[in-house]
Amino acid sequence: MAQFVYAFNEGNKDLKELLGGKGANLAEMTNLGLPVPPGFTITTQASREYLHSGTLPPRLRVEVTTALRAIEDKMRRQLGDFHDPLLVSVRSGAQHSMPGMMDTVLNVGLNDAAVKGLATSSGDARFAWDSYRRLIAMFAKTVLGAPEDPFNEAFDEMKAARGVTADVDLDVESLKELVETYKQLVISECGREFPQHPREQLDLAIEAVFGSWNSERAQLYRRRERIPHDLGTAVNIQAMVFGNMGETSGTGVAFTRDPSSGHSGIYGDYLPNAQGEDVVAGIRTPLHLNDLKELDPKSYDELIHAMRRLETHYRDLCDIEFTIEREKLWLLQTRVGKRTASAAFRIATQLVDESLITMDEALVRVNGEQLSQLLFPQFANHQKAILLTTGMGASPGAAVGEIAFDNAHAIARQEEGADVVLVRRETNPDDLPGMLASKGILTARGGRTSHAAVVARGMGTCAVVGAEELQIDYKSRTLQVGEHTLKEGDVIAIDGTTGKVYAGEVDVVDSATAVYISSGLDAALADAPNEDVSELVISVDRLLTHADATRRMAVRANADSGEDAQRARERGAQGIGLCRTEHQFLGERRQYIQALVLASTPEDEAAAIEALMPIQREAFIEVLDAMDGLPVTIRLLDPPLHEFLPDLTETAVEVAVGKERGEDVSQSERLLGALELIHESNPMLGLRGVRLGLKLDALYRAQIRAIIEATQILREQGKDPQPEIMVPLIGSVRELQIVRDMAEEIMDEILGERSIHVGCMIELPRAALTAHRIAEEADFFSFGTNDLTQTTWGFSRDDVESSFFPLYLQNGVLTISPFETIDGDGVGELVRSGVRGGRSTKPELTMGVCGEHGGDPESIRFFHDADLDYVSCSPYRVPVARLEAGRAKVLGQ
Amino acid sequence: MAQFVYAFNEGNKDLKELLGGKGANLAEMTNLGLPVPPGFTITTQASREYLHSGTLPPRLRVEVTTALRAIEDKMRRQLGDFHDPLLVSVRSGAQHSMPGMMDTVLNVGLNDAAVKGLATSSGDARFAWDSYRRLIAMFAKTVLGAPEDPFNEAFDEMKAARGVTADVDLDVESLKELVETYKQLVISECGREFPQHPREQLDLAIEAVFGSWNSERAQLYRRRERIPHDLGTAVNIQAMVFGNMGETSGTGVAFTRDPSSGHSGIYGDYLPNAQGEDVVAGIRTPLHLNDLKELDPKSYDELIHAMRRLETHYRDLCDIEFTIEREKLWLLQTRVGKRTASAAFRIATQLVDESLITMDEALVRVNGEQLSQLLFPQFANHQKAILLTTGMGASPGAAVGEIAFDNAHAIARQEEGADVVLVRRETNPDDLPGMLASKGILTARGGRTSHAAVVARGMGTCAVVGAEELQIDYKSRTLQVGEHTLKEGDVIAIDGTTGKVYAGEVDVVDSATAVYISSGLDAALADAPNEDVSELVISVDRLLTHADATRRMAVRANADSGEDAQRARERGAQGIGLCRTEHQFLGERRQYIQALVLASTPEDEAAAIEALMPIQREAFIEVLDAMDGLPVTIRLLDPPLHEFLPDLTETAVEVAVGKERGEDVSQSERLLGALELIHESNPMLGLRGVRLGLKLDALYRAQIRAIIEATQILREQGKDPQPEIMVPLIGSVRELQIVRDMAEEIMDEILGERSIHVGCMIELPRAALTAHRIAEEADFFSFGTNDLTQTTWGFSRDDVESSFFPLYLQNGVLTISPFETIDGDGVGELVRSGVRGGRSTKPELTMGVCGEHGGDPESIRFFHDADLDYVSCSPYRVPVARLEAGRAKVLGQ
Repeated sequence: MAQFVYAFNEGNKDLKELLGGKGANLAEMTNLGLPVPPGFTITTQASREYLHSGTLPPRLRVEVTTALRAIEDKMRRQLGDFHDPLLVSVRSGAQHSMPGMMDTVLNVGLNDAAVKGLATSSGDARFAWDSYRRLIAMFAKTVLGAPEDPFNEAFDEMKAARGVTADVDLDVESLKELVETYKQLVISECGREFPQHPREQLDLAIEAVFGSWNSERAQLYRRRERIPHDLGTAVNIQAMVFGNMGETSGTGVAFTRDPSSGHSGIYGDYLPNAQGEDVVAGIRTPLHLNDLKELDPKSYDELIHAMRRLETHYRDLCDIEFTIEREKLWLLQTRVGKRTASAAFRIATQLVDESLITMDEALVRVNGEQLSQLLFPQFANHQKAILLTTGMGASPGAAVGEIAFDNAHAIARQEEGADVVLVRRETNPDDLPGMLASKGILTARGGRTSHAAVVARGMGTCAVVGAEELQIDYKSRTLQVGEHTLKEGDVIAIDGTTGKVYAGEVDVVDSATAVYISSGLDAALADAPNEDVSELVISVDRLLTHADATRRMAVRANADSGEDAQRARERGAQGIGLCRTEHQFLGERRQYIQALVLASTPEDEAAAIEALMPIQREAFIEVLDAMDGLPVTIRLLDPPLHEFLPDLTETAVEVAVGKERGEDVSQSERLLGALELIHESNPMLGLRGVRLGLKLDALYRAQIRAIIEATQILREQGKDPQPEIMVPLIGSVRELQIVRDMAEEIMDEILGERSIHVGCMIELPRAALTAHRIAEEADFFSFGTNDLTQTTWGFSRDDVESSFFPLYLQNGVLTISPFETIDGDGVGELVRSGVRGGRSTKPELTMGVCGEHGGDPESIRFFHDADLDYVSCSPYRVPVARLEAGRAKVLGQ
Repeated sequence: MAQFVYAFNEGNKDLKELLGGKGANLAEMTNLGLPVPPGFTITTQASREYLHSGTLPPRLRVEVTTALRAIEDKMRRQLGDFHDPLLVSVRSGAQHSMPGMMDTVLNVGLNDAAVKGLATSSGDARFAWDSYRRLIAMFAKTVLGAPEDPFNEAFDEMKAARGVTADVDLDVESLKELVETYKQLVISECGREFPQHPREQLDLAIEAVFGSWNSERAQLYRRRERIPHDLGTAVNIQAMVFGNMGETSGTGVAFTRDPSSGHSGIYGDYLPNAQGEDVVAGIRTPLHLNDLKELDPKSYDELIHAMRRLETHYRDLCDIEFTIEREKLWLLQTRVGKRTASAAFRIATQLVDESLITMDEALVRVNGEQLSQLLFPQFANHQKAILLTTGMGASPGAAVGEIAFDNAHAIARQEEGADVVLVRRETNPDDLPGMLASKGILTARGGRTSHAAVVARGMGTCAVVGAEELQIDYKSRTLQVGEHTLKEGDVIAIDGTTGKVYAGEVDVVDSATAVYISSGLDAALADAPNEDVSELVISVDRLLTHADATRRMAVRANADSGEDAQRARERGAQGIGLCRTEHQFLGERRQYIQALVLASTPEDEAAAIEALMPIQREAFIEVLDAMDGLPVTIRLLDPPLHEFLPDLTETAVEVAVGKERGEDVSQSERLLGALELIHESNPMLGLRGVRLGLKLDALYRAQIRAIIEATQILREQGKDPQPEIMVPLIGSVRELQIVRDMAEEIMDEILGERSIHVGCMIELPRAALTAHRIAEEADFFSFGTNDLTQTTWGFSRDDVESSFFPLYLQNGVLTISPFETIDGDGVGELVRSGVRGGRSTKPELTMGVCGEHGGDPESIRFFHDADLDYVSCSPYRVPVARLEAGRAKVLGQ
């Protein structure tokens, strides 16, 4: 049977999963010989059993008794003792820091009798009754669930009645009276008496910590932070020490180095004659930690010694909570300190320069999310702007521009040189031209995985979605938010990180790191406003350079145009992993697809396809030229044809209404006939990808021909184009074989040789499962984990994200959308199977991933472990992917 | 390097894959010491290389030379010799017998010079020139692709010119003249001369056999017979022997026992002075084989001896082709003889009774398809009826009834006691009531996997689909086929096996085997018209009884009603593997679902759900009662709600047109709003199954409650209901856990214990991949291979079958619809993974399969090998599944 209780000297810092972060670090400090008040930790396992059964496991009570006695023995005091009682704190401590949970109950063990003992033993009756008053209030609120206000009001009333303003000025009698009032409040607010039995206090507090794991706030926090719902929390029980025992006592926090710059030194605050909560409450202004040197040199020296010990031990910035009780220093908590993104980079390289960590370790101390934060454009100021509302930050960055409600307006104003923010209730693929023309995208509906959010992230365009207070009226072309009404053309500013939406101009600037990424170190240093920024840019450069030198995986970009390809290349992309050809058929070019669908003779069909040839060839020339010498994976047409055509229902209504009115609807009727013919109940599972390509093989032939002609043209110019032809939606090797035969025939004809690689997407479960067969005909694989996620889970992104992802995140089926971070157990298993199968047939087969997961840090680590050769992501995510690929290599070693 | 050529004495009967059926059996006979003319076989491997490269592999030519010289040495004759030439036959022989391919060229090796040598050496000039004439005609047709008619015409003209009627009456000079004419015909028809070089003849013939693999006829045949397209064919080259060398020569076929009854004895035909093709052509009436005893007792004895040898060796009915050349017997071919379904059963038990095979072996000699053929109702006669057209036989059997064009008419007439055949252009779920009321279903559109076909097979109702000549006019309520016009109410007859459609009455009777299956052996024997039928029924009973005793897998049925359950039980079902609850919401009950969707308050929602409760409880009581004591797996609601609602586009048109006309459309508009809200781009991948159940959890609670209340009611009646609650579309263990908690809560409340099993469908790749986790919360798994096929391949049955299955069957991506027979490489891999995962967590977890594959013989063998505990199929397929499960056990040993 698992042990439910660990004394501090039984644990260590690596047992966070079992003991929580706080408990593990308390154990570590104890074992380092640092002065930690004795205590013990109840494991997360115990909490999971509690959450499952609804009662404290009986064995837990026994283990708590034993551990408690050990504290009592060490402190030579007993819980509830009438003369010299032991008091304990009860603190929650999950594996991941979780502000959503119940935090702390102090002074557990006091009751009507023990308070008198404490008064005697401490020689400070005021202290004893103040402690008791604090316990009752804290216990009522956090354990019994009482509202806080009545207690605060009673306290304020007492101060008013006594004519004092400072808490410390209340005398013993007032505090005794307050204790009585508080006890009555407990009865009226909670319907029960304040428990007098110390062990009952303790057990209720433990149960409350366990229960707080499932509080609404905690669940909300976990969902936001992607923390699994089934971890549970540990509980730490520790002997109380008191910073409020007069002027030789106090409490404080300390950092082993500056948490915002990372520079070495002594940083922290100290508040004499106070308990921990007073520091947090900010009632009095704390002293600088240096002042302690004067007040209590012995404790100060001891603290400095402990800080150095901890930093050397953790080899990182630590923060520490401490209390001094009558000139005796106690450490109550430590952890590796939180830091800003820029501090993370600087501290990492500083620690390297101090020879505390290696460059490999430094790489692990920063991450892609931090780097991406450093890359976003920033609002220089927003004081003069009006905050309209806050939506969801869906694609980070900042954008300022004129409101445009549709494609036409957005494009027109952009062409006239204006910056535009596209504002829509929600977006769909038809809005793409407008999105492309805009600096930012704002929608009233949809979540972080809505069309607007996904496309915006893909384009690196700033977006705020689901700003539900927005009332958009397309007819009157106005936007209403509360009392504010804005017209098309009015300026708004959106912050894609915070989700904030402002009315009016706000200055936006490129970050120094962004300048570094796009223009190099020298440009960024020349531009840097101060030394901190220079230091940051140098740190980023060092770490990114190390990541590039370290990583096994290459990083490519998803890019459909020469411009995108250029941008990707500047950011360090080593090729294009996905060049989508369907983007060549959007906008006005839909007419060709419409002509193709309406074609009644093979000649009409051929003519429609022929018309698309020069457009495609030109597009390929641009992309291949921009990526000269590097691989460019071009995917043949993937989406079903109806995506390029008007909506069936709308057309049916148009025809019916037109007929009713006696209008000539023969044109629309013909279109309707074609739409009905190609209509599918589940287009995602219909005639698309290679299926469409084999059915309409003239189209695939034309695409392949355009790729090969573009190659030939560039070769004739002395260039080195490296196209790779990628076939989508392969389920069987035979499909690939047929397209390969087609491609080789065209290569023979145009090039006289077969130097262009032909490969396929692995995006259907069957492709992953039969990869050993498919590899026979493939020069490369590219895992399409978006589609693979759809088929593996059997849900389509379009349909389910809004309808049940919120429910599924709430009930714990999902901890994060599997479209954001790859689902390692399900989809990931297919990726591993595809890699295994492919390599078993061709050990040297090139394998990569395209699609959004290619830019997601956690997924990148997965792909490294799965032994892929490269990831491909949006040009904007390329630096992030480079960093994460480096980290993945180090973490995987 | 693989050997391309095998001399007959190098092969054996087990090398069919390499040598083809013919070659393997020739080798076997050679090794048995039977008189086989010497020869060799070119492997299927050589043909595959030819088909890939388009030329004969150079090494093949060398191997052929060597093998040819060995024949020459044995026969002491040489190919093309001027004095005593060796002639050879060239015959195709694939692994599976394939009438679609080029079959035979005889007399290869003759040319203008050698024919004279043959005339001398045989002492029969007529024979020599007749052989040459035959070679040229056969070569022109099968190798050079010339039309047959000009040669036949020239032959007939010659006979007319000479005033003779029988071929044999043409004299040498006429034949010489005919050879000249034929050679000219080759030039005019094929644009080349008849090749004089014997080796060129041989090589061209080999190439022609190889090429005939991909002829249209061969491809068509393979598609129909589900033979893979990549096997290729072998070629057999064999020294010619001649049955046309006068009256002491002849040719014949023999069976080692009666191929229609299976009774032991000497069966066959003999034609003196003839070559093989003459027997087939049926020009002269052959003698009975017994007559050979008089004509050539030595050869007869030798033949009888060989027949006995072969039957003992193959331990099965063999058929044999033989030739006698001047009193010398030669065996040219043998194979295990084809037989009718009824003969298969009888022969199998006869061989057991003769102690030639065991009961296990007998079981392997019959199969489920044969059994199902014996079960169909039969047309007693159809002479008096008019054949209207032939469609696709989609669900076997025979049905006669009045034409009904819609549900209302079908139901009305059925209730008046009439037999009805529902005739539709195509069917959809709305037509279900009419389909249920009909004896047969006839559609003008759709393939073997269309809605009509699938549902009809599921119901065991006879169906003919895709009868494209039918012109159905719903308005005038007529059916037009060519010149025939039929009205609603006119009688038609359809044969679901052959696809034939007749106008007028045809008698239909239950087969004796069907009587046996539904009413037992005694009833069937009492009913049997003759001893053959009695013998058949007894054979079926013995083999089915042996299958039941042998098989490891149980057989359950898919049944949604008490009636279906009863029928399944009679047929030997050991429970219900799938009871679909959605069928309780069809028809008029759609109103409740509509009310649910339109509900604007929780009260309305609850009322709509409450209204469904008694309907469901009653339905469950019926099914559980019919299966008392046996497991009944009830699936909670699976389909998306829109399936129970009117079509979105139709409703939108109705609303728009109504508005245009100024009508009150508020009702439809409200419905339209609800439809738009629940509309999904890909409903198959949308809000359905457990997702819908968790979103609308009151509905799942009501279903679970209805199941448990039904159980409680039956228990109170002293019955033993064994329901199992099955949750559809599970992707994650957590989903199942939530529904299990729900179910256990309701069990606690109603039963006070938790005896009812809760399990889930494994029908998503993710479920199969994470089966080890899902098993933690499951009491059983049921593989839903229909949905699993859809997601694994990423195609939806509704969408792709008509749009690209025909193309994919043609281009060889598919050899059979994966919805008919499980795709072992892809979908099957997931089934294996699911079984592995499930058993790793719970070794005793019950696992089965529901869905159509459960009734498909090949799939049943797969499921046995995958170690499932049971298959579940339509009640009508239960006997077939019992037989196949037994065979699978024997075959898997």
